[in-house]
Formats: sequence, C-alpha cells, structure tokens
Amino acid sequence: MRDLTPAPGSLRFRMHEIIFEAETPAGKAFDVTMLVAIILSVIAVSLESVADIREQHGTMLRLIEWIITIAFTIEYVLRLACVGRPLRYARSFFGIVDLLAIVPTYLSVFFVGSQSLAVIRAIRLLRIARVFKLVRFIGEAEQLERAMRTSLRKITVFLGAVLTLVVILGAAMYLIEGEESGFTSIPQSVYWAIVTMTTVGYGDIAPQTVGGKFLASIAMIIGYGIIAVPTGIMTVELGKARKVTADAQLTRACPGCGAARHDPDAKHCKFCGTSLGP
Amino acid sequence: MRDLTPAPGSLRFRMHEIIFEAETPAGKAFDVTMLVAIILSVIAVSLESVADIREQHGTMLRLIEWIITIAFTIEYVLRLACVGRPLRYARSFFGIVDLLAIVPTYLSVFFVGSQSLAVIRAIRLLRIARVFKLVRFIGEAEQLERAMRTSLRKITVFLGAVLTLVVILGAAMYLIEGEESGFTSIPQSVYWAIVTMTTVGYGDIAPQTVGGKFLASIAMIIGYGIIAVPTGIMTVELGKARKVTADAQLTRACPGCGAARHDPDAKHCKFCGTSLGP
Amino acid sequence: MRDLTPAPGSLRFRMHEIIFEAETPAGKAFDVTMLVAIILSVIAVSLESVADIREQHGTMLRLIEWIITIAFTIEYVLRLACVGRPLRYARSFFGIVDLLAIVPTYLSVFFVGSQSLAVIRAIRLLRIARVFKLVRFIGEAEQLERAMRTSLRKITVFLGAVLTLVVILGAAMYLIEGEESGFTSIPQSVYWAIVTMTTVGYGDIAPQTVGGKFLASIAMIIGYGIIAVPTGIMTVELGKARKVTADAQLTRACPGCGAARHDPDAKHCKFCGTSLGP
Amino acid sequence: MRDLTPAPGSLRFRMHEIIFEAETPAGKAFDVTMLVAIILSVIAVSLESVADIREQHGTMLRLIEWIITIAFTIEYVLRLACVGRPLRYARSFFGIVDLLAIVPTYLSVFFVGSQSLAVIRAIRLLRIARVFKLVRFIGEAEQLERAMRTSLRKITVFLGAVLTLVVILGAAMYLIEGEESGFTSIPQSVYWAIVTMTTVGYGDIAPQTVGGKFLASIAMIIGYGIIAVPTGIMTVELGKARKVTADAQLTRACPGCGAARHDPDAKHCKFCGTSLGP
Repeated sequence: MRDLTPAPGSLRFRMHEIIFEAETPAGKAFDVTMLVAIILSVIAVSLESVADIREQHGTMLRLIEWIITIAFTIEYVLRLACVGRPLRYARSFFGIVDLLAIVPTYLSVFFVGSQSLAVIRAIRLLRIARVFKLVRFIGEAEQLERAMRTSLRKITVFLGAVLTLVVILGAAMYLIEGEESGFTSIPQSVYWAIVTMTTVGYGDIAPQTVGGKFLASIAMIIGYGIIAVPTGIMTVELGKARKVTADAQLTRACPGCGAARHDPDAKHCKFCGTSLGP
Repeated sequence: MRDLTPAPGSLRFRMHEIIFEAETPAGKAFDVTMLVAIILSVIAVSLESVADIREQHGTMLRLIEWIITIAFTIEYVLRLACVGRPLRYARSFFGIVDLLAIVPTYLSVFFVGSQSLAVIRAIRLLRIARVFKLVRFIGEAEQLERAMRTSLRKITVFLGAVLTLVVILGAAMYLIEGEESGFTSIPQSVYWAIVTMTTVGYGDIAPQTVGGKFLASIAMIIGYGIIAVPTGIMTVELGKARKVTADAQLTRACPGCGAARHDPDAKHCKFCGTSLGP
Repeated sequence: MRDLTPAPGSLRFRMHEIIFEAETPAGKAFDVTMLVAIILSVIAVSLESVADIREQHGTMLRLIEWIITIAFTIEYVLRLACVGRPLRYARSFFGIVDLLAIVPTYLSVFFVGSQSLAVIRAIRLLRIARVFKLVRFIGEAEQLERAMRTSLRKITVFLGAVLTLVVILGAAMYLIEGEESGFTSIPQSVYWAIVTMTTVGYGDIAPQTVGGKFLASIAMIIGYGIIAVPTGIMTVELGKARKVTADAQLTRACPGCGAARHDPDAKHCKFCGTSLGP
Repeated sequence: MRDLTPAPGSLRFRMHEIIFEAETPAGKAFDVTMLVAIILSVIAVSLESVADIREQHGTMLRLIEWIITIAFTIEYVLRLACVGRPLRYARSFFGIVDLLAIVPTYLSVFFVGSQSLAVIRAIRLLRIARVFKLVRFIGEAEQLERAMRTSLRKITVFLGAVLTLVVILGAAMYLIEGEESGFTSIPQSVYWAIVTMTTVGYGDIAPQTVGGKFLASIAMIIGYGIIAVPTGIMTVELGKARKVTADAQLTRACPGCGAARHDPDAKHCKFCGTSLGP
C-alpha cells in the first residue's frame, strides 16, 4: 500500500495538523471541543438510561447523542482521509476505539438499548491525554505502565494459582452446602468463591451449614492474606521503576577515577575527590 | 488594607496571645477548653439525632449546643478583632472552618435538622493539634503529607483509568442484567461497579444472570488486584520520604566546607573535595 | 515489700521451676498440660454456647470447664505462693490475664452466660509461646513488634484523620438520606461510614437516594485508596526493622581502612583489599 | 526396593520419555493432549452440576467425564509401570494428585454427586506447567515461592495473634448481641468476626445493638488496618527475593579467584583481595 502522507500546505496536511496535532491554536481548539463532546455524550447516554429522565428529556438527550455521533462520524471519515496510511490507522488501537464509539448509536436504530454501548467512547479520553501532551502525567503513567508490564508475569502465575484454588473451593462448597443455601451448581459456587476471596462479600449466597462456614472462614483468611502477593509484587516493581528513572540521572562519571552514581548535587567525586566539572 | 498587628502590651495583644498561641498558661487553658467544647458539641449534636435520646434529653442537648455555639461565635469575633489582618484570617482555611462551625446552629432556627452540619466543627480539632505544637506527631504528619503530595500525580492517573473502567463496566452490566436485577440505569450500574471494584460489596444490587456473574467475577478480580497500584505508589513514596528525613540526619560535616549529607561510604566531601578524615 | 525469692532446694523453689521455667522435664510437662487445658477449655466454652450441643452434652462440658477452672485457680494460687514478689506478679500483664481466666466461671454461678468470658484464657497461650522459648518465632514477633511500635505514631495521625472524616461523612449521609434508608441517627450513619470506608459493606444499611449513592461512591473510593497509607507505613517500617537486624550483622570493620558494612561472606575489605581476618 | 529405571531403548524407556518428558515431539503432543483433557473435564464436571444443562446434555457430559477418567486411569497405570521407583511416585505429591483425579468418578457409581470432587484434577495443570518447562514463568514462581517461604514464620505469628483476637471478639459479641441478631453461639460469632475482620462482610449476621455496633466498628478498623502487616511482610520479602536474583546477575568476576557478586562500588575482590580492575 502506498504512503499517502499529505503534502505540506495541502488541505489534507492542514486537516491532519488540526485533527492529530495539538500544537497550533486550531489543533488545541479541536481537542478541547472533542473533550467536551465526549464527556457530554457519556453523560447523555447515562442519563437517557434513567427511566424518569428519559420520559421527560428523552428527545433532547437523543438529539445530543445523534449530533455528537454524526460529528464523531465526520471526524472518523476525515481522520481516514487525511492520514498517510488509512488502513493502518483503522486497525490501530485508537482507530478501533474511534469506530466503536460511533457504531452503537447507529445500531440503536435496529436494536433498542444498544446505544448504551456508546459509553465506550470514554476510552477516547485517553487520546485527549496523549494529544494534550500532558508530559508530567505521561511520565507518571509510563512509570506505572513499566511497573505493570514487568509484574505481569508474576501476577499471571499468581492468578493461575488463585483460579485453581477458586475452582476447587467452589466444588467443595457445592458438595458441602447443597442447593438450599444457594450453592446450586459448581459455576455458581465458583462465583461465590470469587466474591468471597476478593473480600467483596455480597451476601446473596452465604454458607448455612457448620462445615460450609468453617471452609468459608479458611477461604476468607486466605483471600485476606494473599492480597499481600500482588501488592508486594507491584510495590517492588514500582520501587524499581522509580529507581531506574533515578539511576538514569546518576550516570555522571568521575574524570579522575571513573566512579559513577554520584548524587545529583555532587561537585567532587566521593571516592577520589576529583572535581566532577560543571 | 492596613496591617492592624496588635501593639505589645495592649488588650488586643494579650487576647491574640491567649487565642492564637499556646505558650502561656492562659493560652494553654484556652486551648484545652476549646478541645473539650469541640468534642462535647460533636457528641451533643450526634446524640440529638437519636430519636429516643432527643425525646428524653432534647432540651439539655440543645442548650449545650447553643451555649457552645455562642461561645464559638464570641471566639470568632474576638479572633477577627485581635488578628493583624482580619480579612486574610476570614478567608484562610481555619477562618472558613471557624465560620462553618457556628453557622449550622443558627440556620437550625429556620431549617429543621441543619444543626447536624455542626459536626463540621470536628475539623477544628486540627487547629488544636497545630496549636499544641505536637511536634513529634506533626513530624509524622508532614512525612505522610509529603508522600501523599508526591504520589498525587500517579494516583490521579490511576483514578482516571479506574473511573473510565467503572463507567464502561457499569454500562455493560446495565445491558447484560437489565432492570429486574436492580441494574435500572447506567448511573445505578456505575454505582454498583464502584461498590464491587472497591470490594465493599453491599449486596443491595447483585448480578442474577450467568453473563452478569461472569463479568462481575472479572471486575472483582481486577478490583482486588489493582488495589496493589495505589498501595505500591504510597509505599515507594513513603520509603522515599522517610529516606529524606533519615538522610538529613547523616550529619557527618565536611571539615573544609561544613556541608553535611555525605554518603556513609564517602571518603571526600562531594562538594569541595576535602578529605572527610577517618 | 520484702523479696520472697524462693531459696534453692526449697519446695517453693522447685515449684517455681516447674511453673515458671520450661528447662526441666517436669517444667515442660507442666507447660504441655497447660497448653492442652487452655485449648480444651476454649473449645468447651464455645461448644456450650451452641444450643443443640448444650442440651445433649451440657453437663459434661460444664464439668470439663469447672475442672479446668479449679486447676487454673490452684495454679494461680501456687504462682502467687512461689513467686518472689507476689504483688508484682498479680499486677503484671500475665498475672491479670491469669486472674481473668478463672473469674468468669465463678461469676457464672450468679450471672447466667458470663462463663463465655472464659475464652479470655486464650490469651494465656501467649505465655506458652514465651515459656516454650520458641526463639525463632520470638525473633520474628519482635521484628513485627518493633515495626508496629515505630509506625504507631504515623498510624495514630492517620486514624485521627480517618475518624474526623468518618464523623463528617456520617452526618452528611444522615442529612441526605434520612430515616427511611436506615440512616436513623448520626451515630448510626457514622457506623455505616465505618462499614463502608473499611470496605466491609454489610449492606444492612445502604444509600437509596441519588445524592446518597454519589457521596457513598466517593467515600468508597477514598476508603479503597487510603488503605495504601497504613500498608505503606507498615512496609517501610518492616523493611527498616529487617535492615536493622541485617545491619547488626555487618559491623565487621576492616583492619586496614576501618570501613564497615562488609557482606557477611566477605573475606577482604572491598575498599582497600586488606584481609578481614577469620 | 529395587531400582526399576527403564533401560534405554526399551518400551518402558520410550513410554517414560513420552509421559514424563516434554523434549520429544511425542512428549509434547502427550502434554498438550493432557492439558486439553484436564480443562475439558473440569468444564464437563462443572456444567453437569447445573440442573438445566444436566437435564439436556447430561448423558454427553457423563460420557466425556468417563472417557477422560478412563484415559487418566490408563495414564496412571502406565506411569506406575514405566517409572523407576513406582512406590516413590505413588507417594509423591503428583502421584497422589494423579490418583485423586480419577477416584471421584469411580466413587460416583456408589455415591451420587461425588464426581464433583473430580475438579481436583485442576491441580494436575501444575504438572503441565512443570513439564512444559515454562522457564520464565517458573523463575517468577520460584521468586514468589521463596518470598512466601521466608515470610511464613512471620505470617504464622501474625495469624496466631489474629485467631486469638477473633475468638475473644466472637465471645464478646455473643454476650453483647444475643440470639436475636443471629449471634446464636460462640462459633457462629467467631464466624461473624472472621467475616468482618477480613472485610468480606456478607451481612447475613450483623450487629443490632448500640454496644455491638460500637465493638464491630472497632473490629472493622482493626481488620482494615492489620492487612498492612502481611502485605508489609510480603513486600519486604519479595524485595529481598528479587534482590537475590538481581545480585546473582552482578557477574563482575574477580580476575584472581573468579568469584562474582561483588558490590557495584567494590574495587577489590571481597574474597581474595585481588584488584577488580577499572
């Protein structure tokens, strides 16, 4: 596929600048408008789902939703039109989110209620964050992301063990408690085990027999205790992620002895006393 | 606005000393009285809201409340009178709290029940802590505060992601579960999503369908897992805040330039290169 | 008061050895007997409170309880008799626990049900741990204890802030929700606020109005987030407590350059290469 | 007992290779088949417990279960046949799990419902992980395991204290609340205390009296606070476990004795004193 990168000065180039960049005043205005539109539409979709409000203000809310959807549709088409590689954009994460943000409203013509799915456009807020170049926040987000990525493997191992535990616990409770207490099947009991071990505890299903309460007590204490594991993993990785950032600032080497890791405010090498220079 | 700082020896100076300072015996007595009055009035307001107690002891409780409110009003007027910059005080955090602490009782003449708002005077306890110069505790509070301030950005990023997740989850549950299970609208479902992901789990709304329970299980596991993120952030920042305090105590001073905060293994002053000696 | 330390070889000395020490075979046997008696009596008291079991085995359970209580009473008297400073023992932590462990059964003659308080003798298990000289566990317990003591001040500051928050939140919910939803008084609402912010979430009281649910959502997110604070404090202090233990093992100084903090397995100073000796 | 290690080239040797190893294509195919069979059978057993599905697809699900059980039985017999020390295998962890994975289905002929226990074969998934030599994941799992093992002692001390607390709290609530609120016996109250202190909070039993609510509030705050302890322990141990792994990668080898694991700032080998060079 050919590269259709817009030529500088062309209309497509100007559009690309407004829609994808945030440096120019027009680009900033575009982003602010989009931000307001997203929040407004999420509120409109949410309020429309409330029966009382729908009866009174339904027409107005539907109108807002359609206007924003049509605006987003035009924006989507323009994005496709002015981007260098339209197909690549369409298959990118944000391209798919942009499409998913407009489809539900059109579907609502055929399937009543599907417009609720339009709240998925809340994900578009992520783009705003990106476009606004909230540098400081992105630095923090990157640190979080790095820590999450490196802890992913450990947390996968942990989750695998928890899922096995939850299935066995659910089956045991199904056998002990039986249908009367609400443990009507193994999947239902596994659902109860998840509700219990995550310490959510709705109470819609709760053990009634002595044996069930005993097993449930053990499950609760385990669930209460093992939250320490992902927390510990995350903390260690975050500490490391922060240290990497900090270490990156400590690579000033001493011209005398070559030692690194000097404090940011050091003027002389702490090992041999040579001046570190400006 | 002119500076109306009270002249030493004047009545206003003496009053300022009693009300704002805690060094003199009179100042200390004033603070202890205020402490007792705050706790007494919070208890009185709380007890008055209990129907049984109100019927039996209502008059006495109302009396206590009015006496304390009038005392606090006089105190507020005196503070305004003896402080150097009355307007600046009135607009400060504690000035506003002091005003909010007396307004509800007066409002209760016109609006029944508004006296309950008087519990806001509990915030005045913070002033006591400040005035009492609980140095050691303030040191701890400052460490906590510093860690909280530095983790605020990371936690904002985290909360933004959680809120987006909660809105999308709420809308999905609204579509899957429908009105019968209590998921009557998207805002209601978002409320359920918050109750679930924070592991509170009232159980007033709970999924009934298989799909809903499956999605809820995933939400619970995510909610159970992501508590690791703020905890990890806070731990790392607290560790850093404590290290800063500890570092400040590394008082090996350089014989050349007098600078402190050298690493335990440093042989030369990192600022001027003078040998630090054995 | 005179020191009545038992003379070596006397009957009192021998008794003291059996009851307070665990080195001799007789002392060990005594401790094991006591361990079994405590667990047995806690189980007996617990089972007696179950209506079905009380009807069937009540007499036997009461008998076990009385036998153990009389045994503990004799033990208490003997402890008083053979210890050097009886009054000092009687007022010590374990002296009071030993007394509280026998009083409830005697009280049950006059006040039906007070024997349930006898479970307080579970605290006596702590003595067993101490007597058994479970050194390794005590090392761990001391590390935990030290971390808890140093974090106590920070956690007091934190708890003070949380309590103020909980009172204000409770009063606000009382005003917003009113009697119908179960928020019948401020103390009741404060109870709800504690149930919610600790993420327990019984669901016996839950907000019904839109405003109440909104405020509750904020309270839940705050409660979910601020658990990071005590966890962070504890982690940092535990890390420090462990480091102190580790550091204590690193005080080997280099005979050549005097540098300390060598690894436990180091044979030569890592700064000057001098042998560290055996 | 004689060592019956299969001779290379024999049928038993080939079988051993397929069943216990995963290097050869046949061994890999065997493991994948087993993985699919385990997941399939856990799903089949779970679905069979759902009344609606059992009525419609019961025969098919039972068939799947029996086929897989017979396959697992044959596998178990073959494992016994081709392993060097059959008795040792039979008494090993995986040997017992392999047996427990097939027994429930046979028992279901005599005891209706016992087939639910067959979900225990989910534990067999652990073997798959082992066989697949998921090295990276196993590395993570080992780090987790090491951290868990070293924190076990501290967590045992902590759990002992919590259990004592829970028993005393349960007995106190039993006395305060009485039968009407659901606190029908001490074991029941202890169950409530566990549900509360782990912040699960079903709400099936909840305090009704003022005293009970006050005590419950304290219990909740303690439960909310002490989760900091296992989390702190785990974090510190995980940090240490990670550091050990990281240290092992500090492979600056000494030119004199070849020893690694020198500190980043070491100038001389800490084992033999040879200069480590620049």
